[in-house]
Formats: sequence, structure tokens, C-alpha cells
Amino acid sequence: MQKKIMIAGYGSVAREFVRLILSRSKGIKEKYQIDLLVTGIIGSKGMIYQSEGIQLQELVDFGTGSDALLLYSQHFEIPIIDPRFEGDVLIDCTPTNLENGEPGLTYYSQAIRSGMDIVSVAKGALVHSFKEIMLEAQTKGTRIKYSGATAAALPTLDIGEYSLAGTTINRIEGILNGTSNFILTSMMDDHLSFAEALQLAQQKGIAEPNPVLDVKGFDSACKLLLLSNSLLGTDYSLKDIKIRGIDEVSMEEMLNIKQKNGRLKLLATAYKKEDQVVLEVTPCEIHSHHLLFNVNGTEKGVLFETSEMGTICCTGGASNPKGAAAAALKDFINLYRIG
Amino acid sequence: MQKKIMIAGYGSVAREFVRLILSRSKGIKEKYQIDLLVTGIIGSKGMIYQSEGIQLQELVDFGTGSDALLLYSQHFEIPIIDPRFEGDVLIDCTPTNLENGEPGLTYYSQAIRSGMDIVSVAKGALVHSFKEIMLEAQTKGTRIKYSGATAAALPTLDIGEYSLAGTTINRIEGILNGTSNFILTSMMDDHLSFAEALQLAQQKGIAEPNPVLDVKGFDSACKLLLLSNSLLGTDYSLKDIKIRGIDEVSMEEMLNIKQKNGRLKLLATAYKKEDQVVLEVTPCEIHSHHLLFNVNGTEKGVLFETSEMGTICCTGGASNPKGAAAAALKDFINLYRIG
Repeated sequence: MQKKIMIAGYGSVAREFVRLILSRSKGIKEKYQIDLLVTGIIGSKGMIYQSEGIQLQELVDFGTGSDALLLYSQHFEIPIIDPRFEGDVLIDCTPTNLENGEPGLTYYSQAIRSGMDIVSVAKGALVHSFKEIMLEAQTKGTRIKYSGATAAALPTLDIGEYSLAGTTINRIEGILNGTSNFILTSMMDDHLSFAEALQLAQQKGIAEPNPVLDVKGFDSACKLLLLSNSLLGTDYSLKDIKIRGIDEVSMEEMLNIKQKNGRLKLLATAYKKEDQVVLEVTPCEIHSHHLLFNVNGTEKGVLFETSEMGTICCTGGASNPKGAAAAALKDFINLYRIG
Repeated sequence: MQKKIMIAGYGSVAREFVRLILSRSKGIKEKYQIDLLVTGIIGSKGMIYQSEGIQLQELVDFGTGSDALLLYSQHFEIPIIDPRFEGDVLIDCTPTNLENGEPGLTYYSQAIRSGMDIVSVAKGALVHSFKEIMLEAQTKGTRIKYSGATAAALPTLDIGEYSLAGTTINRIEGILNGTSNFILTSMMDDHLSFAEALQLAQQKGIAEPNPVLDVKGFDSACKLLLLSNSLLGTDYSLKDIKIRGIDEVSMEEMLNIKQKNGRLKLLATAYKKEDQVVLEVTPCEIHSHHLLFNVNGTEKGVLFETSEMGTICCTGGASNPKGAAAAALKDFINLYRIG
């Protein structure tokens, strides 16, 4: 069956998604009988749309962002138009905006009203209005997947939803942000101060120019929120999470922990306490018996404590645009596969 | 919707499965709209069948095995009958028989012909006749899930099928047998000989009275075979796997590895070599950078190397009948859930 794809946002993740479609679409058609067709891409200055399908091979040669879409439109002599929502699924690759969830929020609403499913790599809209979006989708009978927004290539939601289906999850604990883990690892192993480690991360392209979301713990908190609301049945927002970032960690604290053979990790934790689920993001000293002890550098990891299956821990997954794009492609396949 | 369940084999895993249904069926109905009804259970001496549903609360009080089914039949004054296959799904909890795959093989054939799906905790039939069973199921439009046969509570197939959908898996490597891992761990940490460690494992109920399948590497090989045939598209049987068990590991070898800060693990590995997939089960010396280095005792673990998502490693999962039963319940839910 053919599935028409619209992509919102055309940064590095979206471009990697297009590249993956180019390299994997034949295999996906053979294995899952799903025929992929990208018909529209929305950038910040408007949308390119071709009902017969965007020429992806040409598109990837034009770079990323609105400029790429403009070059494409000039090359193929098609107009840049206002966003319109037609097709089977919207892949949201817009930047994460925690202020008001836009432009994702408006896009989701329009996509859902057009009967489209959504695969999201962005956290903004979901974190801002999780309940409202889910309710709207349920009412219209459309579906939303967001592995790309919950640690991307590291399986987190999948494990909770599929591998632990039918079990009771009592605790979720994760190192969910690669940038802050890289900084903490550099501080501990290379004896750098927070500022030095952050600078190193920025030089390596690991930390963004504005690292606030990562180092203040908000990115981890967003992922934890989505996991908890999805898997533990909570109805929380960011303000319900106790958040402490890593920007106040001192070298003295680090050395003290190192002397005890410990490690400092920014842990995002959801646990049950007297019929309530408590969410916390905070730097924690852990020791070698902890399942996430060896998750270092830009690596991420998550563990689930269950009543029936014991504790299951998953680590790894590429922390880069290709990994995030592959997570979106996985969600897309899992939406439409049969069996 | 109501789903009628038949269980084949009534050992400890099947009994835990029944217990799970008792405790979780209300929650499953609420969350997945699936109404579970166990209508028949096949033991080695025949079957109990009640179209209105077996009284599970009474059943679990009668113990396990054919004796329990006999006591139940006497208590409720129903006959022990020849196996018949009616219902939506067969849960196969029969003992693993690698000789000829029976009685599972006959049951599968009859269940598939009756249009039933299959959830398997047993390895025998699938390892013996993987291709034939899959083909028969495909022809009849029924489905087979077998998490319980591929490391049970540790997610292995799920990760390959769902979390890595659309990626290229280049290597699978796992510690897939808890008993042999316990023995190797005891040999290394407690300086026991193989014979002493095996005896300890038997005393603790970890190793079976006949430990050949575990310590000779066959159990690991069976799981590897099912993973490879399912995820890497191979069409192999056990004879295609190079298998070396742990029963020839000497204390001298162990001490030598320990001096180098290494660990000896029975690794089951599938990797690509010149367009071929090679399968091996063999004790390997690994060091602290290896992702499975800290998988000790009865723990299991698996890693997947992919082209798109990097390496993903999953460890843990209860190695006991309850964990295996929970894996079967998960497969059952994933067969019939909507979305």
C-alpha cells in the first residue's frame, strides 16, 4: 500500500530521514509492503509540494533548511506555498519549542483534522499539550508515535509499550541526554571544569550553541515526562518535575565521587510513592552495581523495573541526526506494518 | 473482544501464565480491550476443556502437570479428553524437544489448520521445523510469536522487529543462557571447577538435572537460530551453527583470563561475512569495554549492531518461570492489541 508522507521542518534530522528513504525504501516495500512517497516538505518560509512525489535524490544535494527548499522550488519551477495537510502521515522534525509548542502544535491540529497520523522527532508540542493532542487524535482515530522525541535511537517507548506489555512498571530510570552525559564524563575522566567540558562539547558539535535545555536538565525532563505520561498513566506537565541540571556541579564534588569509585550521572527517574508517580531529574552519584554505571560519553540508557519481568536495561543508540531519523522511520514502519 | 486461549503443557511456566491471567486480566481488558478466556489445557495424559472457561483460581491450587489437570477434572466432574484445537490462540508451554520437535510440531499443525495463532515458550518445534511452520502459518493467515523461546523476559525479538524496524542489523551477540552464565560466573568469582559450579547451580534449582542443553551450548544455539532466521533472513538449522559449550572450560583458563581482568562468557553470535551470515556459540574472553561484560550470574543480555542506529544493548529480565510466562502474555497482547 502507498503511504504519502509530509515532513515538517527540514534540518539535519529531516534530511537524514530523506536519505534513509532513498536508501531503504526498496527494502521497506519488499519487507513490509509499504510504498513510501514524500509529497510535501514544510520549512520556515513555506512548503514545497508535488502530488507525484518530491524528487528526493535532487533534494538532498541542496543542503538543509528553507534555503534547500527554495533551491529545489527554483530548480523544478514549483511554487513555495502555504502549508497544507494532505497525505497519510506527518513527520515532525521542527525544532523543539517548549515556550508554546509551535509550530508543531498548529501542524498537529491541522494534520489530525485531515486524518493524518503523526511521527514526531520534536518534543515541543507533545510536552506542551500532551493530553490535548492525544485526545484530539483519539477522537479523530489517528495515531501518534514519538520515539524520536524520547531518546531517538535508544529504544525507550518501544520497550515500555511492546516488550513490557501486560507487566507492571514500577520505576523508570534513565540517562536520557547525551550532551550532559558527555560533559559529566569529561569532567570526571579528564578533570575539566563544567565550563571547560561544555566548551569541549560545543567544539565537537555535541552541545548546541545555546545549551540551556541540555545542561539545565529540561531535555531529560521532557523525555521523562513523555515516558511517564505514556507508560505510567500520569497526566503531568514539566512543572510537576523536580529538575536540577548539571551546571552547578563543581570539580570538588566530582573528585570526591571519583575517590569513592563512583560516577555522577544526570538521572531522570519516575517512581511510585504512595499511589503517586514522582518524577525527578537530578545529578546522582552511582556505583559499579548500577546498570547505567558504564553509560558514558554521549551514550544514553534506560532501565525499567517491573513486577513480572524483573529489571530490563537498554543502552546505546547513535546520538546523531541519522539515529533520530532512523527512529522516525521505525515509528513510520510500525504504524503501517501488518503483523 | 474475547480471545479464547488453549494452553499446551502445564508445567511451572504454564501455571505462572495462569496466575498472571488471574492477576492481570482486568487490567488487560481495560487497557487493550482484550477479554481473556482459557478454554482448554493439554497435559501429557490428555486435555481438560470447558467452553465457558476453565476455573483458573481453582486450577492453580492443584499444582502443576497432568496430576493437576486430573485433580481439576475430578473436582469439576469433567472428562480428560483427546486434544482438540478450538479457540483463537495456542500457548505452547511444552518441554523443549530438539529430537523431533514433538508434541509441539503436531499441535502447531493442528492449531494452524484450525486458524489459531500461536504463542510459544518452547523451542523444540520452531528449531526443528522453522521454515515449514512459518510457511504453513503464512498460508493459513495465522501468526506465531515466540519471545518466550528467545530469552523470555529479556527483549530480543521485539527489539529486532520493532525497535530496529527499517534498520540494517549487521551483528547480533548475546549471553542467551542464564544457567551457563551462572556457572561461568561462579567459576570465575568463587574459584569453583566446572563440576562444582554445575553442582551449585543444580542445588539452587538454576540448572536442570540434565544440564546438557545448557552447558553444551545447545540452548544458546537454539535462541540464536531463531533470532537469525527471524531477523537476518537466514534459513538455517542447528547443524549450521558452530557450537562449543562451557563443559571443557578449565580452572586454569579461568584464572588466566581473570589475571588479565577479563571475563569468560558463552557468547552466541551472528555476523555477516562476505554476504553470508555466520552463527557461532562459543566461550569468549571479553574485557571491560564489552557491553556484556557486566552481565553476570543468571542474567542474560543481547546487543545489536546496526548501520543506522549504532549499537543497542539490552540486559536483564527475570530468568524464572514468571518471567517466561510474562513474555508469553506480552506476545499474546501484542498479537491482539489495536494500535
